[in-house]
Amino acid sequence: MPDGLDKIRHELALANRILAREDVLDAFGHVSVRHPGDAGRYLLSRSRGPELVEPADILEFTLDSEPVVPPARRLYSERVIHGCIYQARPDVHAVVHHHAPSIMPFCIAGIDLVPVFHLGATMGGKAPFWDSRDEFGDTSLLVIKPEEGRSLARALGSHAMVLMRRHGATVVGANLHEVVFRSIYSARNAEFQQRAYALGGVGALTAGEAVLAAKHNLQPGPVERGWEYWVRRLEKAEAIVHAAMRGKRAAPRRQTAPAKRKAARGGTKRNRRRTRR
Amino acid sequence: MPDGLDKIRHELALANRILAREDVLDAFGHVSVRHPGDAGRYLLSRSRGPELVEPADILEFTLDSEPVVPPARRLYSERVIHGCIYQARPDVHAVVHHHAPSIMPFCIAGIDLVPVFHLGATMGGKAPFWDSRDEFGDTSLLVIKPEEGRSLARALGSHAMVLMRRHGATVVGANLHEVVFRSIYSARNAEFQQRAYALGGVGALTAGEAVLAAKHNLQPGPVERGWEYWVRRLEKAEAIVHAAMRGKRAAPRRQTAPAKRKAARGGTKRNRRRTRR
Amino acid sequence: MPDGLDKIRHELALANRILAREDVLDAFGHVSVRHPGDAGRYLLSRSRGPELVEPADILEFTLDSEPVVPPARRLYSERVIHGCIYQARPDVHAVVHHHAPSIMPFCIAGIDLVPVFHLGATMGGKAPFWDSRDEFGDTSLLVIKPEEGRSLARALGSHAMVLMRRHGATVVGANLHEVVFRSIYSARNAEFQQRAYALGGVGALTAGEAVLAAKHNLQPGPVERGWEYWVRRLEKAEAIVHAAMRGKRAAPRRQTAPAKRKAARGGTKRNRRRTRR
Amino acid sequence: MPDGLDKIRHELALANRILAREDVLDAFGHVSVRHPGDAGRYLLSRSRGPELVEPADILEFTLDSEPVVPPARRLYSERVIHGCIYQARPDVHAVVHHHAPSIMPFCIAGIDLVPVFHLGATMGGKAPFWDSRDEFGDTSLLVIKPEEGRSLARALGSHAMVLMRRHGATVVGANLHEVVFRSIYSARNAEFQQRAYALGGVGALTAGEAVLAAKHNLQPGPVERGWEYWVRRLEKAEAIVHAAMRGKRAAPRRQTAPAKRKAARGGTKRNRRRTRR
Repeated sequence: MPDGLDKIRHELALANRILAREDVLDAFGHVSVRHPGDAGRYLLSRSRGPELVEPADILEFTLDSEPVVPPARRLYSERVIHGCIYQARPDVHAVVHHHAPSIMPFCIAGIDLVPVFHLGATMGGKAPFWDSRDEFGDTSLLVIKPEEGRSLARALGSHAMVLMRRHGATVVGANLHEVVFRSIYSARNAEFQQRAYALGGVGALTAGEAVLAAKHNLQPGPVERGWEYWVRRLEKAEAIVHAAMRGKRAAPRRQTAPAKRKAARGGTKRNRRRTRR
Repeated sequence: MPDGLDKIRHELALANRILAREDVLDAFGHVSVRHPGDAGRYLLSRSRGPELVEPADILEFTLDSEPVVPPARRLYSERVIHGCIYQARPDVHAVVHHHAPSIMPFCIAGIDLVPVFHLGATMGGKAPFWDSRDEFGDTSLLVIKPEEGRSLARALGSHAMVLMRRHGATVVGANLHEVVFRSIYSARNAEFQQRAYALGGVGALTAGEAVLAAKHNLQPGPVERGWEYWVRRLEKAEAIVHAAMRGKRAAPRRQTAPAKRKAARGGTKRNRRRTRR
Repeated sequence: MPDGLDKIRHELALANRILAREDVLDAFGHVSVRHPGDAGRYLLSRSRGPELVEPADILEFTLDSEPVVPPARRLYSERVIHGCIYQARPDVHAVVHHHAPSIMPFCIAGIDLVPVFHLGATMGGKAPFWDSRDEFGDTSLLVIKPEEGRSLARALGSHAMVLMRRHGATVVGANLHEVVFRSIYSARNAEFQQRAYALGGVGALTAGEAVLAAKHNLQPGPVERGWEYWVRRLEKAEAIVHAAMRGKRAAPRRQTAPAKRKAARGGTKRNRRRTRR
Repeated sequence: MPDGLDKIRHELALANRILAREDVLDAFGHVSVRHPGDAGRYLLSRSRGPELVEPADILEFTLDSEPVVPPARRLYSERVIHGCIYQARPDVHAVVHHHAPSIMPFCIAGIDLVPVFHLGATMGGKAPFWDSRDEFGDTSLLVIKPEEGRSLARALGSHAMVLMRRHGATVVGANLHEVVFRSIYSARNAEFQQRAYALGGVGALTAGEAVLAAKHNLQPGPVERGWEYWVRRLEKAEAIVHAAMRGKRAAPRRQTAPAKRKAARGGTKRNRRRTRR
């Protein structure tokens, strides 16, 4: 992978960890970007929890979702979600697939998600549903086969996100910062919509308001304000962990000679394990 | 900016970070104070997430919401919320605009927020609604034009907070500590009201109770007890981050000579980046 | 205050901070114990957020809620809650007054809290309501006057907790560990009851089950298992803060001579302020 | 206990702390594994909060739930849950008993838990109910007597989990990683089901989808992806605590001679107490 991709791999790893930090992703879900220099390829992590994704985990795929280099590690089984959307939507440069807790009730109940506040309007005026059952009958619900991916991309159409019945959501964007912004604020929108519904009624944005509010909030100003905030929150959380881990590695140096010898017998396996991670 | 403003800039930055720490604000929302020495000016951060606001970010504005000094950085687009309220309400010395998760359902459903416990009574007996649609039709929902700010200030009237349909809330106070207290406990009040409603009914305070409970809890005793608590919670959270960051900067010094040389080749970019932030 | 009270002051401060850590208390609420050597006195912190309470904050009061030693600092205005209950209930040795988020909806809606799981049964078979309005009409809702405290104690009767309309709850116990256990698990019980209600129905414990489950869980085994767990959780959270604060105080020593001189000019005020806290 | 069990004791302690970290367990609940070398025995911690469980706490029990070595410390009173299930289900090698907040409303309301998303399908197509009242009338609700344990095991039948009315849930698995995965995602499933119900309707998986989704997600790929993620989250949280504790122990060394003497008088009790824990 050429050196010029270092920045995008760094940003994509960051986006993975931001969306985990902000509770959009947990052990599952994934984030991709279209290759900046080759519209026929995209970048995606090997299979691991998004909170753990580092730049070195990012691999390159064709739009058929085949790895460009034979992989040494397990891959996500739902890669076609990304590849099929990049094929169908030249305007899309970043994709998030998630099971955010606030979105799931809509996917299960089959209730329309609608924009209920200005920042939530970045979801677009409407999020269509896709039900794997309609075309494919009983499946594991995972989107694994190319025809399943293409079906999902058709359901997405020209929208900014699609809700997958009994499964989750897939969100797209013109770039990575936008798709992160939209993923977080559409999840927030879902939470507010559910709570407003419990209060007795949802007064959604008009179609006109939805367009104007989305346009305003997808400008660089708001999107970068969100990005700076989420990056800083992540950096703070990670700095605390890294400082603790640094201390752990530094600690043995302070051991007295006998303690060192003891560690060499009983403690080494654990130390080696930590260093490897 | 004269030296005498250092304390108020410090406190305003603190209020921003407290309200972020207590989940009233996220990447968006803002807090201002009227200039202590000039009733025709107010202080507000440049545009950034409130959790990141430092004293150096605080700028001075006229009540027309124009920056006194030409700004080097992006400003909040909704400054007129603050300026127009300071113009209309000489008794107001601090303003918070937010989209707190517990308040949003009321703004979306259009259900009245009412005081349901003694600390929540600091919201006042009633929080009027403002709907941008009434006067301005379809907009981005943001309060950007002076006439929008004036309309909002009229809806606020002599109340302590105003709910903005499909948008959020604006809370005012006689001083910064009071507006922080009111913002936190009116958000808590909303949460309790919603949950009581789900249990089958809301037994609100009488008008008399609301007045007496607000009067009691807006005395210096309770307000300062809250402020001390929130400042300490923030200080604890920030001390942990700062200690970790300090360790990061200190770490290179502990490197052995060969490690230093290695860092000078591969590691410098990262180090420089961290230092810059 | 005699040396023999050191342990109980330490435990009472711990109980304050545990209940803050476990979200039963926030900036408000308080915890007391009856004086172990004098049944006519009780111990309670001076007025401050429970998360901040240290042994040195604990003061001694008569059962009329008068401080034994003239206080140097502000006192809680609702002390009579504690004094009047200790007067009426010789079996009670510890009292918690709180506004826990899960309990408040019941206080607002006026819906009976009932034991819905074995650990929640420690709340007793029933929690009576007290409404300040019944005897005293419109008040600030705070329990400040001795007659208000006596009225509340009458409503509590022989029960383990009393719900105060539009205000909160007061929980009593045979000792400090028991009242902490009961406060935490009755709050959890309220949360589960509310959610079961939303699912369509609450299948509560029978009276016989409530008695047997409370008896089992108030034995030293379960109560001390809970106490050990909460103490350890608090110790972990506080160790992280203390380590960070320690680093902050230690940091100046690592400064080079020129940096020290700079600190002596610009940085001292901040350092002194931190040390004072 | 032979050396070969070290790894399984380490993993079992880890599973306890993971389930506490992920909010499935609090001060109560427990996790066991069948003895890897003797199908007639199982391993379980002594009685303490799962967050505190270390390998040294793990004890060996016969399937009659008797400790193999006379215990020095208190044991869990509900051990028969584990023993009776291992007797009845040779295919089960790990058991979790919990009172997760999202599951409890179903146990209280008596509403069926059904798989509502692909990861939740690992709960199996159905979770039967067990009500201690049916066979045993009024009890403390705890499963203490062998006949109670056997009754619960009968209710579980060949299912993957059983809901215990007014009490909690018991989840089983072919191994420790699977039971942790199932415990976490069935709790998540409960949360989503409750929220979908509040939105107006639950569109559950078909029986066929439930089988296929469970089969897919119980493969090593997804189960290990979850395990890696939860282990790393726990390691991060624990590293921060350990670093802080390490600093505390290291601190005295940095004291000057007079400070040491002062500590020898007033501070020793506290230091000794910390070291003992």
